[in-house]
Amino acid sequence: MLTDMYQITMCYGYWMAKRHQTPAVFDMFFRKSPFNGEFTVFGGLSQVLAFLHTYRISDTQLTYLKTLMPAADPEFFEWLAQIDCSKVKVYGFKEGSIVFPREPLLRVEGPIGICQLLETTLLCIVNYASLVATNAARMRVAVGPEKTLLEMGLRRAQGPDGGLSASRYAHIGGFDATSNVLAGQLFGIKVSGTHAHAFVQSFSGLDDLPTRNIKTADGSVTVDFVSLVLKYRLEMQREKTNIGELSAFIAYCQAFPTAFLALVDTYDTLESGVPNFLACSLALIEVGYFPLGIRLDSGDLAMLSIQAREMLKATEAKYNSSMPNVVGLAAATIVASNDIDEESLYQLNAAGHQIDSFGIGTHLVTCQAQPALGCVYKLVEMNSAPRIKLSQDLVKISVPCKKRLFRLYLPCGAPAGDIMMSEQEVASNGPPLPGNPVVLRHPMDAAVRWTMTPSAVRDVLQCVWDGKIVGQPESIAEARKRCVSEMGLLKPEHLRRENPVPYKVSLSDELFESMHKLWLAEAPQ
Amino acid sequence: MLTDMYQITMCYGYWMAKRHQTPAVFDMFFRKSPFNGEFTVFGGLSQVLAFLHTYRISDTQLTYLKTLMPAADPEFFEWLAQIDCSKVKVYGFKEGSIVFPREPLLRVEGPIGICQLLETTLLCIVNYASLVATNAARMRVAVGPEKTLLEMGLRRAQGPDGGLSASRYAHIGGFDATSNVLAGQLFGIKVSGTHAHAFVQSFSGLDDLPTRNIKTADGSVTVDFVSLVLKYRLEMQREKTNIGELSAFIAYCQAFPTAFLALVDTYDTLESGVPNFLACSLALIEVGYFPLGIRLDSGDLAMLSIQAREMLKATEAKYNSSMPNVVGLAAATIVASNDIDEESLYQLNAAGHQIDSFGIGTHLVTCQAQPALGCVYKLVEMNSAPRIKLSQDLVKISVPCKKRLFRLYLPCGAPAGDIMMSEQEVASNGPPLPGNPVVLRHPMDAAVRWTMTPSAVRDVLQCVWDGKIVGQPESIAEARKRCVSEMGLLKPEHLRRENPVPYKVSLSDELFESMHKLWLAEAPQ
Repeated sequence: MLTDMYQITMCYGYWMAKRHQTPAVFDMFFRKSPFNGEFTVFGGLSQVLAFLHTYRISDTQLTYLKTLMPAADPEFFEWLAQIDCSKVKVYGFKEGSIVFPREPLLRVEGPIGICQLLETTLLCIVNYASLVATNAARMRVAVGPEKTLLEMGLRRAQGPDGGLSASRYAHIGGFDATSNVLAGQLFGIKVSGTHAHAFVQSFSGLDDLPTRNIKTADGSVTVDFVSLVLKYRLEMQREKTNIGELSAFIAYCQAFPTAFLALVDTYDTLESGVPNFLACSLALIEVGYFPLGIRLDSGDLAMLSIQAREMLKATEAKYNSSMPNVVGLAAATIVASNDIDEESLYQLNAAGHQIDSFGIGTHLVTCQAQPALGCVYKLVEMNSAPRIKLSQDLVKISVPCKKRLFRLYLPCGAPAGDIMMSEQEVASNGPPLPGNPVVLRHPMDAAVRWTMTPSAVRDVLQCVWDGKIVGQPESIAEARKRCVSEMGLLKPEHLRRENPVPYKVSLSDELFESMHKLWLAEAPQ
Repeated sequence: MLTDMYQITMCYGYWMAKRHQTPAVFDMFFRKSPFNGEFTVFGGLSQVLAFLHTYRISDTQLTYLKTLMPAADPEFFEWLAQIDCSKVKVYGFKEGSIVFPREPLLRVEGPIGICQLLETTLLCIVNYASLVATNAARMRVAVGPEKTLLEMGLRRAQGPDGGLSASRYAHIGGFDATSNVLAGQLFGIKVSGTHAHAFVQSFSGLDDLPTRNIKTADGSVTVDFVSLVLKYRLEMQREKTNIGELSAFIAYCQAFPTAFLALVDTYDTLESGVPNFLACSLALIEVGYFPLGIRLDSGDLAMLSIQAREMLKATEAKYNSSMPNVVGLAAATIVASNDIDEESLYQLNAAGHQIDSFGIGTHLVTCQAQPALGCVYKLVEMNSAPRIKLSQDLVKISVPCKKRLFRLYLPCGAPAGDIMMSEQEVASNGPPLPGNPVVLRHPMDAAVRWTMTPSAVRDVLQCVWDGKIVGQPESIAEARKRCVSEMGLLKPEHLRRENPVPYKVSLSDELFESMHKLWLAEAPQ
């Protein structure tokens, strides 16, 4: 029922024309990779399979549909009442695969009436999943493999479920952790988070602390932690820092002595937040713990991270001789958040930031730079005859017929291009073979052709649904691993932000010819 | 559990500091209206109330939380196990209200530990709801009150729930109908939809039709509809139109003789789609029905709508004398879709389009121009003392203390501005009164002040939750009505797309002074 009305009305149209059982093939594909990029991470397969598995129209839903189509033949609803996906077959990429424009991500085969009903939900799942996974993967490219990426977009997502999808697919695309507790529970993603400004603001002074004490790390003694912190604050000549903030940090140390990560920008990052963090950190170290680091959430993140790092280094250097355990303070984690997007990651790189970990929310989950992928679901074959959709916009013309898709590899292991062939051609002539030259045609431009001899060939569209789920369900971790591995194999010129080189998705000679013949036949003369 | 981890860790921090029960006040507000505009439609209240009503932490969730915080005191989890919102009070705007930057949309009061836990979910609900309602309202401003706006964004939303929220809040913001069947069922929004390209593509020719017949509208006779259609096609000298498309239109007429709305761009809009629509329409009219119209989904929508309208008019004119019932064909509905956004609505206006109804998907639900509202939730009072959050970014400084908010009206009924006052000031001096001059201060700039004498005053933040829902739940229709009515009252200069005039949200003299005193006190010296 989570579908567009026109799927139901079309379905009735097929039913009335006695064509609802006619075998059809739909391709799901997109026309352009998002974010002005040249690659896309495919996401959503496991949700698609779960949807197909449970697809039914309930009696309540039927009752409602009847009110929307009062003039329809009652037998149509009887037919609707008993449909499911047992006669549907789906071939697709595996989740986390790198995919490209025009090629089918999913090939859905079955009675046209049923395949049509699935369209909207399949698009809804795959579009956003792939978009956010791609966005995450692009951010991973921007920061490199060593930095930590934390997804924290729940509050800016399209409602609760949007937030949960964002956490899931950002992880597949290469994020390390999420702030979303439910995503942690459901998907096993590492959950991370410390405190917000409200926690700092809620403390006005040391009187707000119910105890001045902390237990030492070995549990042997209880010491006056407040006095210790104040001693270091005095030694650093930082008595003018905000006392409410200092009290909040002390309270946080008392609650999480092994996980002290302080948000330092509530009042003034360099004049109050970082000095207060350092005073607490030295005190923590003295009693046997070690602080995690700081979080910056406003201002010039590159500059603040550089200056904060200098303060960390200077403090370690100053106490190095008197306090051996201070070693490592200079390398404490600096987390940065505040409206970070892909663009600002590159700007931070250029500015020589000292950030270890990025918390990214709004721009990750909303994909501001391109908030929709634009996957479509087009009929490519009906009753074994290829079908095409024409358009004045060339890019909107679909590649007809039931297709196979092969990825062709270079000797170095990098994919060189993908080729689409009709199922029939593969049946007659076999798939492309390693060591044999293959002619590749541009789908639109007859003048553009290219021959390559692949070192390896992969048949990428595998059967994932045949009336029921085929094979074992994959974990999110497996999909993430595939994404990271395929990204690693792809040539860097496809991944780069500026002027990326398009990856070639071609047609076989035969498919090119049959497509253009059909095009001419269907256009008005 | 749909929350950020730091809410839980902070909560533990409060609990350890024995402050989790301390009374606190949080304001939810945004800093800038979206889409470079100067107004925002508040959405999400009924979902917020439903969330508060059911808020509990289950045993399964507690078990998971314990794994995330293994070192935490077990008594903390015992406390978490029994919390609910019975000690929380919420004051807020009603759903569909027009709201402005910096002013509280919701004021949440209660034990800080609990109020803190609510933050992420409240933001998640209100942010997207208000954003999409505002986006919808801006599109309504663009097309005027007479045109029909259809939401069809399900396939491009952030997953299923994102799509459902979009349908709901687009309707509140002024959309007329949705393509989303489930939204129709759940929210009573009018559902609308016809067919897609696949339906047209699925037909190759007249042989695909199981019957040539149709029953006349009065049910008296069965006639050969195909021959009738072909007769008109011949009369119009349009024998070269795509025959598969014509067959699909005939099948659709047979299924929906009273609701024939044809998607005309599968092969060629003006050379095939519109002529095929006209041939079917004349045949339908001859047998006693009347067509609804056409849908354009690609190309230059303004030009195509103008030319299609000319063809409709010419056909009505040609058949006017011989077929009296053809009257009205010239005014058949022209629906347009294809990546429409607010900008393109204004471009279509400028191009003198002939569109009656706009189908808007991607740009409505994703809010491409600004995909997140940026609502925040800030502590403004703790244990009856005002709290402030400072920042190097002036716009990020919050207005402290538990506040009241009054909307001041001009004699014409238009709101002139909103004023925030502390609860305490209102208790001592009373609210602003009609006919009495009020001094209004800019929140940041001491030099900007203004006096006005309101004709009417409205106390806008009403108690909506006091341990339980206060008053009767509102329907979506009521919220939509409020939105339309408040938009109508607002001065047009706040609504316009180009250089809209900011609506003034001010502080009382007393609140201004106390805010700036606190600011000085909290900044590092």
